Amino acid sequence: MRSDMDISRSASLQPLADIAARLGLTPNQWRLYGSHKAKVSLSAIPEQTDRPRGKLVVVTAVTPTPFGEGKTVTTIGVTQGLQHLGQKVCACIRQPSLGPVFGVKGGAAGGGFSQVVPMEDLNLHMTGDIHAVTSAHNLAAAAIDARLHHETRMGERFERQTGLKRLNIDPERILWRRVVDHNDRALRQIQVGLGQGNGPEHENGFDITAASELMAILALCRDLKDMRKRIGQVLLALDVDGKPVSAEDLGVAGAMTAIMRDAIEPTLMQTLSGAPCLVHAGPFANIAHGNSSIIADRIALAHADFVVTEGGFGSDMGFEKFCNIKCRQSGERPAAAVLVVTLRALKANSGLGDEASSQEKLAAGFANLAWHISNVQGYGIPAVVAINHFAEDAQQELLWLKEQALAAGAFGCEISDAFSLGAEGAAALAAVVLKATAQQSEFKQLYSADDSFGAKLMTLAERYGAAGVLMSPEADADLAELTRLGLDKLPLCMAKTPLSISHDPALKGAPRGFELPVRRLRVSAGAGFITVLTGNVMTMPGLGPKPGYLAIDIDDDGQIVGLA
Amino acid sequence: MRSDMDISRSASLQPLADIAARLGLTPNQWRLYGSHKAKVSLSAIPEQTDRPRGKLVVVTAVTPTPFGEGKTVTTIGVTQGLQHLGQKVCACIRQPSLGPVFGVKGGAAGGGFSQVVPMEDLNLHMTGDIHAVTSAHNLAAAAIDARLHHETRMGERFERQTGLKRLNIDPERILWRRVVDHNDRALRQIQVGLGQGNGPEHENGFDITAASELMAILALCRDLKDMRKRIGQVLLALDVDGKPVSAEDLGVAGAMTAIMRDAIEPTLMQTLSGAPCLVHAGPFANIAHGNSSIIADRIALAHADFVVTEGGFGSDMGFEKFCNIKCRQSGERPAAAVLVVTLRALKANSGLGDEASSQEKLAAGFANLAWHISNVQGYGIPAVVAINHFAEDAQQELLWLKEQALAAGAFGCEISDAFSLGAEGAAALAAVVLKATAQQSEFKQLYSADDSFGAKLMTLAERYGAAGVLMSPEADADLAELTRLGLDKLPLCMAKTPLSISHDPALKGAPRGFELPVRRLRVSAGAGFITVLTGNVMTMPGLGPKPGYLAIDIDDDGQIVGLA
Repeated sequence: MRSDMDISRSASLQPLADIAARLGLTPNQWRLYGSHKAKVSLSAIPEQTDRPRGKLVVVTAVTPTPFGEGKTVTTIGVTQGLQHLGQKVCACIRQPSLGPVFGVKGGAAGGGFSQVVPMEDLNLHMTGDIHAVTSAHNLAAAAIDARLHHETRMGERFERQTGLKRLNIDPERILWRRVVDHNDRALRQIQVGLGQGNGPEHENGFDITAASELMAILALCRDLKDMRKRIGQVLLALDVDGKPVSAEDLGVAGAMTAIMRDAIEPTLMQTLSGAPCLVHAGPFANIAHGNSSIIADRIALAHADFVVTEGGFGSDMGFEKFCNIKCRQSGERPAAAVLVVTLRALKANSGLGDEASSQEKLAAGFANLAWHISNVQGYGIPAVVAINHFAEDAQQELLWLKEQALAAGAFGCEISDAFSLGAEGAAALAAVVLKATAQQSEFKQLYSADDSFGAKLMTLAERYGAAGVLMSPEADADLAELTRLGLDKLPLCMAKTPLSISHDPALKGAPRGFELPVRRLRVSAGAGFITVLTGNVMTMPGLGPKPGYLAIDIDDDGQIVGLA
Repeated sequence: MRSDMDISRSASLQPLADIAARLGLTPNQWRLYGSHKAKVSLSAIPEQTDRPRGKLVVVTAVTPTPFGEGKTVTTIGVTQGLQHLGQKVCACIRQPSLGPVFGVKGGAAGGGFSQVVPMEDLNLHMTGDIHAVTSAHNLAAAAIDARLHHETRMGERFERQTGLKRLNIDPERILWRRVVDHNDRALRQIQVGLGQGNGPEHENGFDITAASELMAILALCRDLKDMRKRIGQVLLALDVDGKPVSAEDLGVAGAMTAIMRDAIEPTLMQTLSGAPCLVHAGPFANIAHGNSSIIADRIALAHADFVVTEGGFGSDMGFEKFCNIKCRQSGERPAAAVLVVTLRALKANSGLGDEASSQEKLAAGFANLAWHISNVQGYGIPAVVAINHFAEDAQQELLWLKEQALAAGAFGCEISDAFSLGAEGAAALAAVVLKATAQQSEFKQLYSADDSFGAKLMTLAERYGAAGVLMSPEADADLAELTRLGLDKLPLCMAKTPLSISHDPALKGAPRGFELPVRRLRVSAGAGFITVLTGNVMTMPGLGPKPGYLAIDIDDDGQIVGLA
């Protein structure tokens, strides 16, 4: 079988000017960044237009397994399938983080004949947006420690000599960690400011950039002014009296915005079939809100008739946040969801061991799909199940699954050969998606912004199947603090394992009756949500014992090899 | 007076295609990155050509002061001046680090009417090369700690389960620190791997990216294969038996190279007069080798008749390393040096206080210029002194200085109005540079590669004016280690204060008879030099009490303000 990289490299790419024209962009609305990428200006979002806005389709999945279910393959597949059916369509996906690229899977550009190309451009720096987020984030961290250092060192002289107001940051209550776009376990918890003249010493740590609040802001803001305002609101620390210290207070919000100014423009690339794809922002869906940007969606919806986007991981993760966080902020109403499933994933989700037959595993694992269908429907939109087809799949299992999915309430169910056949392999799926989007969206969020923190949390927990919620003393204290700061009414961004609908990766299928533990709360005042850390969710992954980077190199022609 | 940013923003930029054509590049040799930047392919370096190679002019300066002497202004000034005289010329400069941009001076694109534009593109991410260096560097750091973690955790099982050979890295002898492109004092010395399951715990720290060996490799390599090989040679750690562990041993060199693949291409921009400028790599000259890339020089020398580049800080710093490290590796022979001086800098270099008259200070400070003239001449090339003119300069002091400079052996001396008048203000200076380059270069390095470490060090120390060298016990141990590893014969990269010809910023003018202390040695096996840390040189700057970022913001039009 040809590798994704082989297929990507042997593809004859279309001039990006053709791709931009296909999306309906005028030449002054985009600028090339290298041969096959372009930054799209926010001027591509019209203030007023007679054109009906496109329909938004969100791709989600059953509970993921280590095998990969092919969600991005299906997102690109549906895009290419709709294009094949003569529709004007645009995909909107996230920029991959280098952490997973070098850690595990080697690439996140889709695969087979449903890819965004060139895949190495997408998987490595693209146009530098993630680096900009990292840089802006770490400038704030450096600024906090520098201010602390000088106020401590200069004492009473500080205000007189600098003309700046003392902030009196409490070194034990710095809320802003640092970020790096790698899987770096050793940086999870560190002690900084050691050594003569480098203090005050205090505990700190690094998250992966995908977990940065600035990444969430990039994905959620409407325009540059909104981004500037949100960055100013970011809560960096508390002072010795417990009062909040924001990026605005520290005077660093303008510089942070300047660093991210170009990052606000989505990057236009193409699928293997020449469909436009806007790539923008990259929050993870387990430790962050897991969706590409509102700005990219707005550009795409203004120009295309169909916009296909995806939320990370299962429908309990990225899709939930798509509905309750992203659409709440953007005001968009998705027309339909595509729910990706594989036979292999359902069997793995059964929790059954080798003693069970393939059919037994599939039947048991189906409960997981049924939960996800019902979850999607709970948001008032039709769920189209896409069975991502693998060569080894048994025909009768595929037929059984299709029947069961429809019986469980799916609007439609189609087998997708997007990976092996590209656009044609996803045409049947795309036709059902077309039909699903023809009806009026009755989209609704799961909870109201006015609900209390406890009510919001309980609504989500019950949806997962939990019998109750167990707040740790630290989480209770965090909530008291948030309430004191007037920030307790924000929507929730659940940080939990993607490997179960619950908080516990060992609970397979559609678990019920468990107690959802809440370890800590973190507020993202600029992004506009409260992150709820359940179980032992890591905001910084680690490299495994045999990491993906081992395979990656350049060949004699200077081409990158080993990315997938 | 108009700000640099105002001048930059109101400039009518020429299409980059015109700039590329002016340099003689064919359209397949460059790719746009945004409207006003282009990556230039290494295919622009011809294997063979009938065309005579251009002449290389290196710009250096007297001992710098906090006021700024205008070295980049003069580099761009001479470039624009040569263009004004009808010459085919290209400037080659470094990419500015974000550390100083947000820390101190707000920009490093030249100034006034001798700038590289757009200045905010140059000063912020440009085409992302520095971010790529940061990312590649930190991938290696994460890889070291992950390997250490898994070998420790898995014990005997490691080799069996991964198929990889144990490296047995000694956590106390990890030589690879981490990097960030900010001034972040609190990260100078840190403890990593704290907390359950994140260890082994050990001391580490961050340098600024400009000090990364990968930045030096980017600046010194000849092509992608050479870069790949050098990255493989980078010494990351010692194992428990004291044997070296390289990036190749860790299997991470290929991935690091992949991250830096696009960074190897210099970025083409333009000066305010429309002269081509290649911007590439950004090692500092105090803690690293302080020069832009060999690749950029090679591209420029292949196409232009004159190439104007600069070494960081005074001629004891970047210029020395230009000659003894960069030219040793590239084989290039500079035709002339331009030595930038200001009246203000010489007075500050006098070490005299307010009790002395202006003329007394100038006379005393002149010893500094005399040293730099003689230093340049010691390399066998003519020194053209450029007096960077400020409005407040007294005419008679300017004339006195010009006379003295010629008497001290300068090939020529001209007053430069490059800042206020652009190309015309530097035309007289450029004419003298033209004359200086007309003679045959008798360029020679200061020491031979075969000299022992001690002999090389003594040669440099004597040139500074030192009576001797004092190696710390740690430095002696470092040297013994380097000798054991067979790496003691590499050229030296002196890490010292730029604020004195000596190691001590308090020693002004042209100090003599001091003892040069050597604190530690660090080897850069891939870059090919030994860094000699003198005094208390910091490889990570800190933000001051009133840092530059306070002024930086975006305005209502989304333009960046406050950069200079």
